[in-house]
Amino acid sequence: MLSKNQAKNIRALHRKKERREQGLFLVEGEKIVAELLASNWRIEALYATSEFIDAYQTQLIAKNIDAVPCRAQTLASVGTLSSNNAALAVVQQAPAHIKTDASWVLALDNINDPGNLGSLLRIADWYGIQQLVCSPNTVELYNPKVINASKGSFLRVAVQQQALPEYFASLPADKPIYGAYLDGESIHRISPSKTSGVVLLGSEAHGISPELAAFVTHKITIPAFGAAESLNVGVAAAVICDNLRRLTS
Amino acid sequence: MLSKNQAKNIRALHRKKERREQGLFLVEGEKIVAELLASNWRIEALYATSEFIDAYQTQLIAKNIDAVPCRAQTLASVGTLSSNNAALAVVQQAPAHIKTDASWVLALDNINDPGNLGSLLRIADWYGIQQLVCSPNTVELYNPKVINASKGSFLRVAVQQQALPEYFASLPADKPIYGAYLDGESIHRISPSKTSGVVLLGSEAHGISPELAAFVTHKITIPAFGAAESLNVGVAAAVICDNLRRLTS
Repeated sequence: MLSKNQAKNIRALHRKKERREQGLFLVEGEKIVAELLASNWRIEALYATSEFIDAYQTQLIAKNIDAVPCRAQTLASVGTLSSNNAALAVVQQAPAHIKTDASWVLALDNINDPGNLGSLLRIADWYGIQQLVCSPNTVELYNPKVINASKGSFLRVAVQQQALPEYFASLPADKPIYGAYLDGESIHRISPSKTSGVVLLGSEAHGISPELAAFVTHKITIPAFGAAESLNVGVAAAVICDNLRRLTS
Repeated sequence: MLSKNQAKNIRALHRKKERREQGLFLVEGEKIVAELLASNWRIEALYATSEFIDAYQTQLIAKNIDAVPCRAQTLASVGTLSSNNAALAVVQQAPAHIKTDASWVLALDNINDPGNLGSLLRIADWYGIQQLVCSPNTVELYNPKVINASKGSFLRVAVQQQALPEYFASLPADKPIYGAYLDGESIHRISPSKTSGVVLLGSEAHGISPELAAFVTHKITIPAFGAAESLNVGVAAAVICDNLRRLTS
């Protein structure tokens, strides 16, 4: 059973301010909590159904986690998901746990939508890109919608917030920076770097901001065959990564 | 000003049953209503801010539409969007308005999430795919979340609901059917048809159902370079379409 105090503490973490002050965040649902248990992220508290606790007993013992048994209904009522018949974890914010190979990087300029950031984490993870660099006005990584949409990929992809002009200025001069535009060179025709690069994506509403354009070494575009005006930023990122990575597959 | 009766009629169209019985649905927001005005879909009623009415006066006169002026707050309160400072249209369901070239088709097996179906419409439209064939258990096209996520692409892509075994059986024997699996041939290595084909996508949870596997002529896979288990179905569709279409670009 969940105490009133525990319920209050979990609900507090729905709010960005509390997450920042406490350095904690929520991870919810069976698959993603199972992935969390297999990672080295620090779990402060775990609330789970007795079915989940039975199924993951070995991992819980190995990590010395004393899970609090709860009904599915309770998990849904204190968490952010509309239904959760498995588990909810309170986790320490600890991006430093991730050791990254930064040969390929996604740089994100002003991505506000949490679903899009989560989706970008999942796509980066699929394409073996272990580092995201986000402009300071990007949505917070620990927003529950970001974590949920990432489907566990937040465990493997490091996210760093930094002013992008400063980040780009710090890169070696020969690092290719691919900027996604609506009028660049077709990604079907470019000869991408086989070893490393940065893919820069702007917001759906505003694109890449003018002050960053000067850093872009390759203006690229996804060829259109029909009449849609644009693609969702996550979709665009996946198609670009697929083209940049295909030479090494 | 909106009458009580008009508000009631709009709110009724939030429900699938009412949409089906009345053969009507809602289209909301500036960009998508502007695209609607440029199409030949039939508008039954239009509610809009005076700014929108002023900006689109020419189109409204040309179509003989008597728009009802409303405040943005009213549009949001009767519609399905959390904010709408432009317009809301009540539109006739009329897929027959779309003339399609069915050389390329997306076939969808059991796609339940309205955001995913909307996203698939937008992706099909980008890649010049004018026909979707959906299994009967696919989410309804006229669900407001589908329409909104499609960003106007529902105006240009025809959606037909049909049992997929029946649809596949009706195709010419030499039509390639590309099925997206986690263990097929790499889409980076196949030599796709240059002229036509069907791309079959299953639900994120269950993949392509076994009874459809027999119709698949090419089992294909998006190569992974990292640790994510899967991609969102819309993201996967875009990457597959990009690879199938690149030979003709």
